[in-house]
Order: sequence, then C-alpha cells, then structure tokens
Amino acid sequence: MISVVILGAGNVATHLFKAFNKTNEVSVIQWYNRTLDKLKPYSKQVNTCDNLDDLVDADLYILTVSDDSIAELSSKLPFEDKLVVHTSGSVGVYDLDKKHKRGVLYPLQTFSKDADVDFANVPICIETIDKKSYPLLKKVAVSLGSPTKRVNSDQRRTLHLAAVYVNNFTNQLYRIAHEITESEGAEFDMLKPLILETAKKVQDMSPYMAQTGPAKRNDKKTINAHLKLLEKQEHKDIYKLLTKSIQNTHGRKKL
Amino acid sequence: MISVVILGAGNVATHLFKAFNKTNEVSVIQWYNRTLDKLKPYSKQVNTCDNLDDLVDADLYILTVSDDSIAELSSKLPFEDKLVVHTSGSVGVYDLDKKHKRGVLYPLQTFSKDADVDFANVPICIETIDKKSYPLLKKVAVSLGSPTKRVNSDQRRTLHLAAVYVNNFTNQLYRIAHEITESEGAEFDMLKPLILETAKKVQDMSPYMAQTGPAKRNDKKTINAHLKLLEKQEHKDIYKLLTKSIQNTHGRKKL
Ligand SMILES: NC(=O)c1ccc[n+]([C@@H]2O[C@H](COP(=O)([O-])OP(=O)(O)OC[C@H]3O[C@@H](n4cnc5c(N)ncnc54)[C@H](OP(=O)(O)O)[C@@H]3O)[C@@H](O)[C@H]2O)c1
Ligand SMILES: NC(=O)c1ccc[n+]([C@@H]2O[C@H](COP(=O)([O-])OP(=O)(O)OC[C@H]3O[C@@H](n4cnc5c(N)ncnc54)[C@H](OP(=O)(O)O)[C@@H]3O)[C@@H](O)[C@H]2O)c1
Repeated sequence: MISVVILGAGNVATHLFKAFNKTNEVSVIQWYNRTLDKLKPYSKQVNTCDNLDDLVDADLYILTVSDDSIAELSSKLPFEDKLVVHTSGSVGVYDLDKKHKRGVLYPLQTFSKDADVDFANVPICIETIDKKSYPLLKKVAVSLGSPTKRVNSDQRRTLHLAAVYVNNFTNQLYRIAHEITESEGAEFDMLKPLILETAKKVQDMSPYMAQTGPAKRNDKKTINAHLKLLEKQEHKDIYKLLTKSIQNTHGRKKL
Repeated sequence: MISVVILGAGNVATHLFKAFNKTNEVSVIQWYNRTLDKLKPYSKQVNTCDNLDDLVDADLYILTVSDDSIAELSSKLPFEDKLVVHTSGSVGVYDLDKKHKRGVLYPLQTFSKDADVDFANVPICIETIDKKSYPLLKKVAVSLGSPTKRVNSDQRRTLHLAAVYVNNFTNQLYRIAHEITESEGAEFDMLKPLILETAKKVQDMSPYMAQTGPAKRNDKKTINAHLKLLEKQEHKDIYKLLTKSIQNTHGRKKL
C-alpha cells in the first residue's frame, strides 16, 4: 500500500482524494489544507490538519495548491528527502524545494467542482528528476485507472499550452457561437450535437483529415457572406484569422 | 406514406437515403444523379435515373447537391407546383425556382462518407415559404428521429455561420494543438479526452460558465510564458486574439 498525503483542498485535490479512496493500492493517510473548513466533510474519513508541523510520514506528498503557492509551500515542509510532487501543467519541477525528491503528476483534464470525474478519461503526465521516483508515481497514476505518459518539462509545458487551445480557446468559440445565435433568436442548443461530433471525429481521425467547410474549400462567396453577417469586429477578426490559418494548413503539404 | 425523390448522390444524399429506408413514414421512390455511377450500388433497392425527364411524381423532391448547383437544378426540373427543398445552410430558399413550392431541410451536422450517422444527433432546421408545406417537412424530419426546429432564413444563415465556429474553427484549434505537441515530441493523443470533455461540458452548462484557464484568470505570467513558447507567428496571433476575446467576455457582464 502506498501512503499519500494530499496538500490543498481545491478541485483537483478533492477529486484525487475521492478517487484514491476507491483504490486498493493507494491510501490517503492525511489531508492538509491551510484552513480546515473545506476538509470538514471528510474529517471522519481521513486525518485532516491545517498545521504543517502535524504532517505524518508518507511515501508521497501531493501539493495540489494554486500554481503560485507551490514553491513556497514546498519549502515550508518540515522534512526533507521525501517524494514531493505538484499537479500543475505550467510550474517547473525545479520550483519545488531541492531538499525533496521532486516530481510532477499533471492530470491533463479540466476539473469542475460538481461533475464526477472518471480518471480513465484523465491522462496523467508523469515527470521526475531522479529515475528512481518514477515507478512509484506510475503506480499511483495507474491505480486511478488513468492512462499515463512519462514526459519531460518541455513536453509537459507544451501539453499545457496545447490544452489551452483545445479547452479554453475552443470553449470561447462555443461562446461566440452562443452570442451569434442568441442575437438572431436562433438556438445555441441546436449546435450541441455538432459540437460533440466535432470532438468525437478527431478521436480516430487527424484534425487535418477531419477539416471541411468554406475556408478549406476556399468558398469566397460564403466567407464574404459570413463576414457581412457578423456584427462584432472581434468576431470578424477571429473569423478572418482562423480562416487564414485553415487555408495555410490546407494550401501547404500535409504534416 | 410520404413519397420522396432525392436528387444528388453525395455525402448528405447517401446518408438521407439510408436513413429514409429505415423509416415507415417515408419512401424514397426514386434517386437521381447527373451521373449514375454513384447510384449503382443502390440500383436494386430504388429506381435510379440520370435524366430529369424521367423524374416521377412525388410528394417531395430533395435537392442534395452542391450549393452552387441548387438554383440551376431547381429551374431545370420539368414540373411545377411541387414541393422542392434543398439541404444547404447558406443558400437562400428564394434561390429555388419560383415555379415550385419551396423549402429547406438543413441538417445541422457534419457528415463524413464512411461514418454511420444517427439522425437523433442531427437537428434539422426547417424553413418554408408557405405555411402549408411545413407539416409535411416536419413529418419527414421527425421520421428520421431528428430534433427539428422551424427557422427563418436569417436564423438558418446564422446557425450555419455559428457552425463554422464550433466545427471548422474548433477543428483548426485541434490542428494547431496537434502541430504544437508533435513539434515537441509530445503526443496529441493525450489531449483527446480533454477535447471530448470540453465538448461534453457545454451540453449542460453555458460556455460562459464553463470557461477556465489563464486568460479568464488574467494570469499574465502563464500567458507570457505561452507566447514565448509558441514558435509560429500565426499561433501567437491566434493565442493573443482568443485570449483577448475571453477577457472581453469575462471582464464584461454575463450575457
Ligand atoms: N482545475 C483544473 O482543471 C486543473 C487541471 C490540471 C491541473 N491543475 C493544477 O492543480 C493545482 C490545483 O488546482 P485546483 O484547480 O484544484 O485549484 P483550486 O480549486 O483553486 O484550489 C487551490 C487550493 O490551493 C490552496 N492554496 C492557495 N494558495 C495557497 C497558499 N498560499 N498556501 C497554501 N495553500 C494555498 C487553496 O487553499 P484554500 O482552500 O485555503 O483557499 C486551495 O485548497 C494547480 O497547480 C493547477 O494548476 C488544475
Ligand atoms: N457535408 C455536410 O456535412 C453537409 C451538412 C449540412 C448540409 N450540407 C449541404 O448538403 C448539400 C450536399 O452536400 P454534400 O456534402 O452531400 O455534397 P457532396 O458530397 O459534395 O455531393 C454533391 C452532389 O452534388 C452533385 N452536383 C454537383 N454539381 C452539380 C450540378 N451542377 N448538377 C447536378 N448535380 C451536381 C454531385 O454530383 P456528382 O456525383 O455527379 O459529382 C454530388 O452528387 C449541400 O447543399 C451542402 O451545403 C452538407
């Protein structure tokens, strides 16, 4: 049994706690947060604490706190030479205090407070400085049922950046579609099956192969009609830039 | 039983033919294409033809041909006063020859040749000029198991435009994520669960509520690190524009 202490009580920490509780390989033996209120609902299930001096000995400490507080929290930990990881896509592994064995368990997924999480759909990127720490982190990730991948810092940062495109930016395109449709009394709901299908299509087909539409066809009549229809300058700018991007991709040779 | 003649033998026509064949309410009594080769595999199932003069009498003629050929084909039809519709999101209903009763059945989905289509996931936008044609078109769409919505021309054009954002442009963001990850030896595959989850999230939550990430948080450190990481100017431009758009959306009041 691998013993784990979780530090932090936000979105990711809470989902991790619940998921570890269902495994037979990992035991969360303590849950720390700087304030106890968020931990109260769990105080019967696990030893909770808000004082770093009370931290118990464990195989692994997972810092699941805001990116900006990872470095400081890691240096405040009153022990050394233990395996300490964070869960951020963008914070360096060397930002953890060097008195620890350091690593990262970056879950490449978007977590919401309320929605249930199936870790089978949460790929976990594993990074370690010394090779010896890797097998334990791999076991921990696999115990959750997650696909895992060993990455270096550059790859993790790149995946985090790419995630901004496929998650935040894509979601903003949905938002714009929402604005456009509602302004005409059309229903955004009508687009929901298409949104899902677009995401499903690239599960087995490259985005290059999946592309269709007026930009790819260079259908100038439709493109101009669309630009005329758009009222907001920002929506026009995005339309033009992404149309150009599609044309650059499909004018050139395939990657 | 509603009798239908399909004209055109592309993606949409083929999926419609197969789906109608499974219903009890609609019978495809003839399938026309300007050339017969694509219809050959179906010649035992349905009367096929490549000559407009051979067209038989039917309750409904569905022109499922390229946008640019809809107007001309409709005017060449050797009859009048019959219900004739096209399936395009961007072509006007008045582009159909005025000798017909005119309408549109616009399936708001992306069709690929090979993938099976479940019409339960294909909302159909129905437009008619005279109200009398509506009930029959509604029956036809409902027979496929599709959600339906009566729309006017402006709404249909707007939905088609919004579909470009959530389908073509979103797919291009996937493509960029593909380029970014592969250039670092990271795996695009790792992003696939996140792509799906992002699409699923807005099935029950507005894109406004679903937004997260550095742009929304105005996390300048991460934004600058990302811009530095990006190699292609085009990727930087898209990053900047969509970041600004997210900030405009979330700086202002909620829609
Ligand atoms: N959310 C996601 O979708 C996601 C996905 C992948 C990775 N991550 C990473 O996972 C980590 C946690 O993210 P999250 O979304 O769970 O964050 P969150 O919900 O905002 O929770 C942040 C946690 O950090 C604690 N915290 C903040 N500042 C602190 C400080 N100075 N000292 C000690 N604790 C502090 C907070 O304590 P209080 O409860 O006292 O406020 C809270 O428990 C981050 O590194 C993030 O980049 C998040
Ligand atoms: N594909 C989609 O995802 C989608 C979604 C919603 C709506 N639509 C609309 O559905 C319609 C058909 O699209 P599609 O994707 O099925 O097209 P497609 O696969 O490209 O097939 C086009 C069909 O039109 C025929 N055609 C082209 N020019 C013609 C002409 N001058 N005279 C007669 N027939 C002609 C072609 O005949 P040949 O076989 O002889 O070449 C072919 O059968 C379009 O209005 C499109 O906007 C498409």
